[in-house]
Amino acid sequence: MPIRKTTTTLADGRELIYFDDTAPYVGGTATRELRDSRDPAPVAVTGTMRYDVLTGEWVALASHRNSRTFLPAPDECPLCPTRPGRPATEIPADDYDVAVFENRFPSFALGAQPPSPEHVDGEALWPQRAAAGRCEVVCFTSDHDRGLAQLPVSRVRTVLAALVDRTRALSALPGIAQVYCFENRGEEIGVTLRHPHGQIYAYPALPARTEALLRQSRTHHRRTGRVLLRDVLDAERRAGTRMVIEAEHWSAYVPAAARWPVELHLAPHRDVPDLTELTDDELDELAALYRDILTRLDRYFDGVTALPYIAGWHQAPIGADRGLGRLHLQVFSLMRAPHRMKFLAGSESGMGAWISDTTPEAIAARFRAVAPDRGTP
Amino acid sequence: MPIRKTTTTLADGRELIYFDDTAPYVGGTATRELRDSRDPAPVAVTGTMRYDVLTGEWVALASHRNSRTFLPAPDECPLCPTRPGRPATEIPADDYDVAVFENRFPSFALGAQPPSPEHVDGEALWPQRAAAGRCEVVCFTSDHDRGLAQLPVSRVRTVLAALVDRTRALSALPGIAQVYCFENRGEEIGVTLRHPHGQIYAYPALPARTEALLRQSRTHHRRTGRVLLRDVLDAERRAGTRMVIEAEHWSAYVPAAARWPVELHLAPHRDVPDLTELTDDELDELAALYRDILTRLDRYFDGVTALPYIAGWHQAPIGADRGLGRLHLQVFSLMRAPHRMKFLAGSESGMGAWISDTTPEAIAARFRAVAPDRGTP
Repeated sequence: MPIRKTTTTLADGRELIYFDDTAPYVGGTATRELRDSRDPAPVAVTGTMRYDVLTGEWVALASHRNSRTFLPAPDECPLCPTRPGRPATEIPADDYDVAVFENRFPSFALGAQPPSPEHVDGEALWPQRAAAGRCEVVCFTSDHDRGLAQLPVSRVRTVLAALVDRTRALSALPGIAQVYCFENRGEEIGVTLRHPHGQIYAYPALPARTEALLRQSRTHHRRTGRVLLRDVLDAERRAGTRMVIEAEHWSAYVPAAARWPVELHLAPHRDVPDLTELTDDELDELAALYRDILTRLDRYFDGVTALPYIAGWHQAPIGADRGLGRLHLQVFSLMRAPHRMKFLAGSESGMGAWISDTTPEAIAARFRAVAPDRGTP
Repeated sequence: MPIRKTTTTLADGRELIYFDDTAPYVGGTATRELRDSRDPAPVAVTGTMRYDVLTGEWVALASHRNSRTFLPAPDECPLCPTRPGRPATEIPADDYDVAVFENRFPSFALGAQPPSPEHVDGEALWPQRAAAGRCEVVCFTSDHDRGLAQLPVSRVRTVLAALVDRTRALSALPGIAQVYCFENRGEEIGVTLRHPHGQIYAYPALPARTEALLRQSRTHHRRTGRVLLRDVLDAERRAGTRMVIEAEHWSAYVPAAARWPVELHLAPHRDVPDLTELTDDELDELAALYRDILTRLDRYFDGVTALPYIAGWHQAPIGADRGLGRLHLQVFSLMRAPHRMKFLAGSESGMGAWISDTTPEAIAARFRAVAPDRGTP
């Protein structure tokens, strides 16, 4: 399947990239109007990050984001193609397959200026720095009403190709520590645009979960000489009690200490640091498995046809600790019973002490029970 | 103010303790019926904890909690006093000032049995243990409809006396690593009982936030010979830019890297590890300041008269690292604009990378602007 990539620029200077998989290619052709006709609006690049000395984490301050677009009417969706008689959207083509563009309300932007002074209030305890990264939006389809699970496997494969391309490109930008491709789905978790889309954050500092994973991986490697995530995968396959899918190149399992009410990890059998090092065979199988997993999510709770979920690709960090990382997908939901969300209150939000209302084995049993029927297209 | 403490036992064996501050004492008198007349229901003590090898954190599994009481009708509130003609509640007295009892759906219980085998599926990567701690509920008042901010300062002082008593008692129980007193308020953050109440968790393992704080404190102490939290307080008072209240014994400030849309820390001027070591003068001032802070929360957003919030007391851990801890209160809200909640989606929940939609200085300015009027009772 040949994928055609076309890189363009929006009126305000942001990059917009089409990934088209179907001839006649609908995005990026010379015969269509691809120029953004809107007046350029100023793009906010004022973000800073502050070091939280109580936790050792960097917190991004992005106050310009509080005015971001919030649940617009369907005919004002900024992720739909630009159509005659409608206001221009973020995508100045009348159709597309998959499109990626720089977020207009980015938490991280390479143009962010280093704050002065170097420390908040000049106090040595509080370093601050520019939130100099990049945030992109990935539109999965031009169809406002079809989620990833409703798209053909071939289109999911195009989305993956876009993630591979963007991971490679963003990893090469100056000062990037890690690239995170993720999807938030559902208003229950605060999604502000209904159009099916994912996001990519290129972080300038390692996020807390990666720092924790690296600490654990380093200790494990010192003790055993092995890669922690590899040993976790092997142990899950050996135990089998939480295994959901074992395919040729990938396995999906509920982790032994799953903390979310619904959680599934998907890992390649081969040691792979990030999406860019997957083979075509691995990507092809992944497209089908990913769609399979998303289908199970929408069958997980009776009466919930669109489970709110977060799906995120944990990739190896860029730089010295790359060898400790190993690609895996984490899919989870905060729904704990039909239409009842888990809230992160005192124990979780105040203390970081997680209380799960279920067991990993019960989650795995449910994921197995809601497998798509054979023969489902 | 003499506080009378009366310890009793519920029908199912759980402890119930009255803290009465006003004569005639309404709870715990010989002339009133204090015996729980209900049939004893079995108390779940099945909780286990699993070690999450990817993060180094212990996750508690409490699947029995998924059936806990959820937003009962006001006349079925289990935290109200037991009144003639109504079903018996958790509190078998017809009135009380402050009452504390063991949670009927505890995440941690001392009776929890060690799971077998010692590792999940017998795999060395996945230690598991009993969730052997204790969870208590603190009823602030017998009045179903009055929050802490509406109670007289003297009653807030009684609540503090109860927290001091319980911190001392729970710290002395076997295997407890840290005692966390907190309040979740508001259905927006998942509160399942509307009656004004707080909770106390006695954790058998140090929560993630404490582990992070200890890591940071240890590094700081090695480098400077000083206590991190003391230096943070001094730096905030020196800078002044985020200071909200400076009283005789306490200061309230927005931390330099505040991650929540609304966040305030309150710390004593004297180095104190936990609530049990506060003097009467410090507790008296604290009662007034705490009520002041809660009043500001309910004036923070125009049109929001009861801000959903989490207030938690970070106390020094029990044991070897006690000297690195220092008492402070963290009050925060996930509301980012009137009636609009911040959601923890991909970046926060998946990666632990926090993006704030505001600045700590803006939060502090707002907290100063909504100070209670002088002379407010």
